[in-house]
Amino acid sequence: MYERLKGFRDFYPGEMGARRTVVDATESAARRYGFREVGTPALERTRMYVDKSGEEIVDELYSFTDRGGREVAMTPELTPTVARMVVAKQQELSKPIKWYSTRPFWRYEEPQQGRFREFYQTNVDVFGSADPAADAEVLAFAADAMTDLGLTGEEFEFRVSHRDILGGLLASFEADVDVRAAIRAVDKSAKIAEEEYHDLLVDAGLDYDEARQFDSLLESGDLDELTDFAGTDRVADAVGNLRAVLDAADDFGAREYCTLSLETARGLDYYTGVVFECFDTTGGVSRAVFGGGRYDDLIEDFGGRPTPAVGVALGDATLQLLLQNADVWPDEALSTDYYVLSVGDTRPTAARIARDLRERDNVVETDVAGRSFGAQMGYADGVNARTVVIVGERDLENDKVTVKDMASGEQTTAPVDDFPGDRDAPSYDDFAA
Amino acid sequence: MYERLKGFRDFYPGEMGARRTVVDATESAARRYGFREVGTPALERTRMYVDKSGEEIVDELYSFTDRGGREVAMTPELTPTVARMVVAKQQELSKPIKWYSTRPFWRYEEPQQGRFREFYQTNVDVFGSADPAADAEVLAFAADAMTDLGLTGEEFEFRVSHRDILGGLLASFEADVDVRAAIRAVDKSAKIAEEEYHDLLVDAGLDYDEARQFDSLLESGDLDELTDFAGTDRVADAVGNLRAVLDAADDFGAREYCTLSLETARGLDYYTGVVFECFDTTGGVSRAVFGGGRYDDLIEDFGGRPTPAVGVALGDATLQLLLQNADVWPDEALSTDYYVLSVGDTRPTAARIARDLRERDNVVETDVAGRSFGAQMGYADGVNARTVVIVGERDLENDKVTVKDMASGEQTTAPVDDFPGDRDAPSYDDFAA
Repeated sequence: MYERLKGFRDFYPGEMGARRTVVDATESAARRYGFREVGTPALERTRMYVDKSGEEIVDELYSFTDRGGREVAMTPELTPTVARMVVAKQQELSKPIKWYSTRPFWRYEEPQQGRFREFYQTNVDVFGSADPAADAEVLAFAADAMTDLGLTGEEFEFRVSHRDILGGLLASFEADVDVRAAIRAVDKSAKIAEEEYHDLLVDAGLDYDEARQFDSLLESGDLDELTDFAGTDRVADAVGNLRAVLDAADDFGAREYCTLSLETARGLDYYTGVVFECFDTTGGVSRAVFGGGRYDDLIEDFGGRPTPAVGVALGDATLQLLLQNADVWPDEALSTDYYVLSVGDTRPTAARIARDLRERDNVVETDVAGRSFGAQMGYADGVNARTVVIVGERDLENDKVTVKDMASGEQTTAPVDDFPGDRDAPSYDDFAA
Repeated sequence: MYERLKGFRDFYPGEMGARRTVVDATESAARRYGFREVGTPALERTRMYVDKSGEEIVDELYSFTDRGGREVAMTPELTPTVARMVVAKQQELSKPIKWYSTRPFWRYEEPQQGRFREFYQTNVDVFGSADPAADAEVLAFAADAMTDLGLTGEEFEFRVSHRDILGGLLASFEADVDVRAAIRAVDKSAKIAEEEYHDLLVDAGLDYDEARQFDSLLESGDLDELTDFAGTDRVADAVGNLRAVLDAADDFGAREYCTLSLETARGLDYYTGVVFECFDTTGGVSRAVFGGGRYDDLIEDFGGRPTPAVGVALGDATLQLLLQNADVWPDEALSTDYYVLSVGDTRPTAARIARDLRERDNVVETDVAGRSFGAQMGYADGVNARTVVIVGERDLENDKVTVKDMASGEQTTAPVDDFPGDRDAPSYDDFAA
């Protein structure tokens, strides 16, 4: 007997059906905005992550040397891959480029609630627009996906921040600050004690007074005060950009889900502008459910022409927790339109009926195991068949089949030659006297 | 600039859209038969393949030691994984178990036409039925998938064989035959010269006379002659089983696509009964397009209770070649229902219209890059927008928007308050005088 690997999951039909409903809803929202599906490899050169995605990711890679001597890694996220794809076809692709995809990713991390070594994301990205409307469209798509899944503004919020407000503010201090380290400290601030947070800021180059000041400016979230404090065009521009994104989000119907939260930073190094994280406002999920933001430098870093970009990645595990907490996780019960039950020497007729019903796009099961009437009826019940069509020898002698409604238990007969006839979804009611 | 790995593919929106259409059609056929989707990991313990799947697969694995010291492999096929899953829940799962899934797999092989290191398969399996109807249902699903994709019996056939006819026939010779090696020789026979084929059979234990006799019995495909020659119950039973599967396939509507072909063997060691391969009958694709068969011993080999099983795996690359040869590969052009073009200070209205159209389930793009009228119109044309809704300042002053049919180039105005109004898919025709 073989065991599944730690941090990896098997999904059996009930749970998988619910997951498929969630992915379908999310992808449907993306398609309505004109995002187009792309397909991407599970392996990339390790160097792509070593060079660009920050040290902390590299330690978590499933990386190895392939049989041809290449250093490769199972993709821990999508963004570097789509950046590579944009660079590869930058001449041909008309802008803005709007892509989505859903697929697994892999990170060697310690599994915990809502975190697995193999996890699934729906990634949605816009390349080629620096306009605040692009950021807002990503927020609007995410809001539509959440509300389509049955959530309301009572249950989730997007905490919106701006990397260049953080970076510009840090630059306005006298000290020589390691901005990446300081922003990583901000990203951790909600999860650690204040002292530890200030220590990290001091490690990044601020002194303790500055750390306290920085912390309190972010906490207040007062954009005017912060702009005055910094006194630089950079911070004023970043604040203007953030406000423009929120204005566009208002036009696009997503503003009501957005909260200004400068203490939101996102861990990844490549973000440059607006960043945001989705949180469970009922407190049921303690971590960010998912996040996204603007990364205007990555395509150029990857050897492409300067191409602004903004995106979001919805992860499966935390989203499932949020949906379950809000009691809108889809029903995991199987559903089956018809079970065509064959007893005795009736398979040709039962098979003809099953084929006709399937041609009308119904989910139809029939016996493929030579089982008894009772065993078939038990199976039909187990797969929640709505209607059972019993094709028995005696009925057939009278050119009839029996149509049984499984909810009520009532049954009647129907002429075999008129079943399903011209009906797309024949039921007990169609034949009951 | 980073390069994609050899044998891996990026799919951009046009091609990906066509691939999605193919997968959707295939999965829809599986669902209509009551197959249920499962989700499975990309990594398994290497031992699972080393123990069970035959030496030739092991050499082709993307295998490595993970950071926890586990010997792991990127899954080269689905069957061992679903066998593991069946064993893990054999008490709870009611039989027959009918599963499907679509996902990538990985093998370190030399890429060639129709073969990649990363490839995608839709796997469909029935566990828990030894009845010939289960084999026939798998054939019927596959036939429905192919015809739903637009193929006809002029373009494909299922070459059907039976492992136990081959094994029983080999056992009926005096010689001590390595059955696995002999069956692998049969699997290769179509691709190699007759002499080389006979050499392989001799390596497996037959003498040259027996090899010629075996070859000619398979080639004739005369089941009666073959049964008489072997003179064993084993071969008689296997022949009876094969005939019963073809009879059931007749009831299920798939018999017309099946050809008896005893020289079809399938490479994998775990098959036990009926095996089949789909071929392009126009000769456009020289290799098998896909294949499947019965593997009754695998679940028990994996530590489970004896559980017969039969399945098929449709691979993306050869299927694409077949569909392209038959000229039924889906259109790769993007499609877009509406482009809502905003010029001047009209974003709130344009955004409201875009939202209303999306709520009615349309694919709607709008400007997120602050572009000119001409650039937006060019983009709308590039994404094949059917209708462009122009929201301009002058029209809005008169409470109107312009509705342009992109195919004809004709345009008219519509009252902004009545657009879309109660229409699900408003068009130029709805407003033209």
